[in-house]
Amino acid sequence: MTLRGRKKGETVPQGVVGRLPVYFRYLTELELAGVERVSSAQLGEALDFTAAQIRSDLSYFGSFGQQGYGYNVAELLDQVKQILGIKQKYAMVLVGAGNLGKAIGSYEWFRAEGFEIEAIFDVDPHLIGNRHGGCIIRSVDELTSYLKEHPADIGIIATPKAAGQSVCDLLVEGGVDSIWNFSPTHLTVPDHVLVEDMHLTDSLLRLVFRLNERRAGDGETD
Amino acid sequence: MTLRGRKKGETVPQGVVGRLPVYFRYLTELELAGVERVSSAQLGEALDFTAAQIRSDLSYFGSFGQQGYGYNVAELLDQVKQILGIKQKYAMVLVGAGNLGKAIGSYEWFRAEGFEIEAIFDVDPHLIGNRHGGCIIRSVDELTSYLKEHPADIGIIATPKAAGQSVCDLLVEGGVDSIWNFSPTHLTVPDHVLVEDMHLTDSLLRLVFRLNERRAGDGETD
Repeated sequence: MTLRGRKKGETVPQGVVGRLPVYFRYLTELELAGVERVSSAQLGEALDFTAAQIRSDLSYFGSFGQQGYGYNVAELLDQVKQILGIKQKYAMVLVGAGNLGKAIGSYEWFRAEGFEIEAIFDVDPHLIGNRHGGCIIRSVDELTSYLKEHPADIGIIATPKAAGQSVCDLLVEGGVDSIWNFSPTHLTVPDHVLVEDMHLTDSLLRLVFRLNERRAGDGETD
Repeated sequence: MTLRGRKKGETVPQGVVGRLPVYFRYLTELELAGVERVSSAQLGEALDFTAAQIRSDLSYFGSFGQQGYGYNVAELLDQVKQILGIKQKYAMVLVGAGNLGKAIGSYEWFRAEGFEIEAIFDVDPHLIGNRHGGCIIRSVDELTSYLKEHPADIGIIATPKAAGQSVCDLLVEGGVDSIWNFSPTHLTVPDHVLVEDMHLTDSLLRLVFRLNERRAGDGETD
């Protein structure tokens, strides 16, 4: 992977990393709509960032707009994809084939961008053997042997809370060192393993907190 | 809502807001496990925050541990719930009853904490009339008239991307001013409306970015 404009080994601040997918998503929409150029001011307005922040983020990766022209959408999108590393293939395994697992497994965007769910596992005998999104649902008992034959880049955990840690342990033992965690539990992993949590409750609680803050603000007389 | 230790109208930094649900989740686990006390050092180690950051976050809300004792788990959890505003009831409507909508609709945690999905809407005639999680799935054509009779605090959008904005517009017209958005699109809303995005792709892309950053780091010889 080339990280243009970055010093080798330099760590990108979490704030910038967090904004990159937002750029990716919006630039994809612009490209689909046939928009060729975009200014930092336009990007800022659409994404609720300041134009200065956008220029700062993009220059971090060595991308510079031209005065009076702005950024070329296709080039910028290509560069953001490169930086995010989504111009390669990733093998994923999914554990948990309930409603949430099924929703993840049928997310069409994945395949379009090179993310392939290669196998799905569950403990429920009623689900094992069924097909979902082109995969047969296998018993979680087969996970360890499967991973020996088919190394995976990313393990997705979509189990109930109680099973999250034990499934995570199986994935890590099977050599999976990037975990995308949807189970509402805090996973304990060795230092070399990355965990990205997708906690529904965290997101809802942030919304509710802001809702209450706004209501408290509305109620003030001064 | 009481925000103990906070100045009226003072805005809490987004970083602190983002960490509150993490405290909530972990303190809930401790309480369920029967743990009575916790130090800022223990909290820090479990959550990968520094002890200084934890003391700073909690003192922001007027919560002070005692030297050599730490924090009382039950009291701290109670306070975090109070701050987050989850000691009240919230009426929610859900639009989109596909796999993702069903996963959201059957999330047991909601009801336990006072979040009630009161109605579910979809456009699919095969789904309309079915029951899910105690609700009948209604036609989205009924959304406007439903909201007139039953005001909702929070609208959940779990539709495909193409329907996201139009469903959002219907919710906002129906008086819903807090949107929890799972559709992979950037919603445009009036200033008074809050949007909390739950974008699967953003989360996956953050993971992949870190995965590549680590691989690039592993490949370095110096």
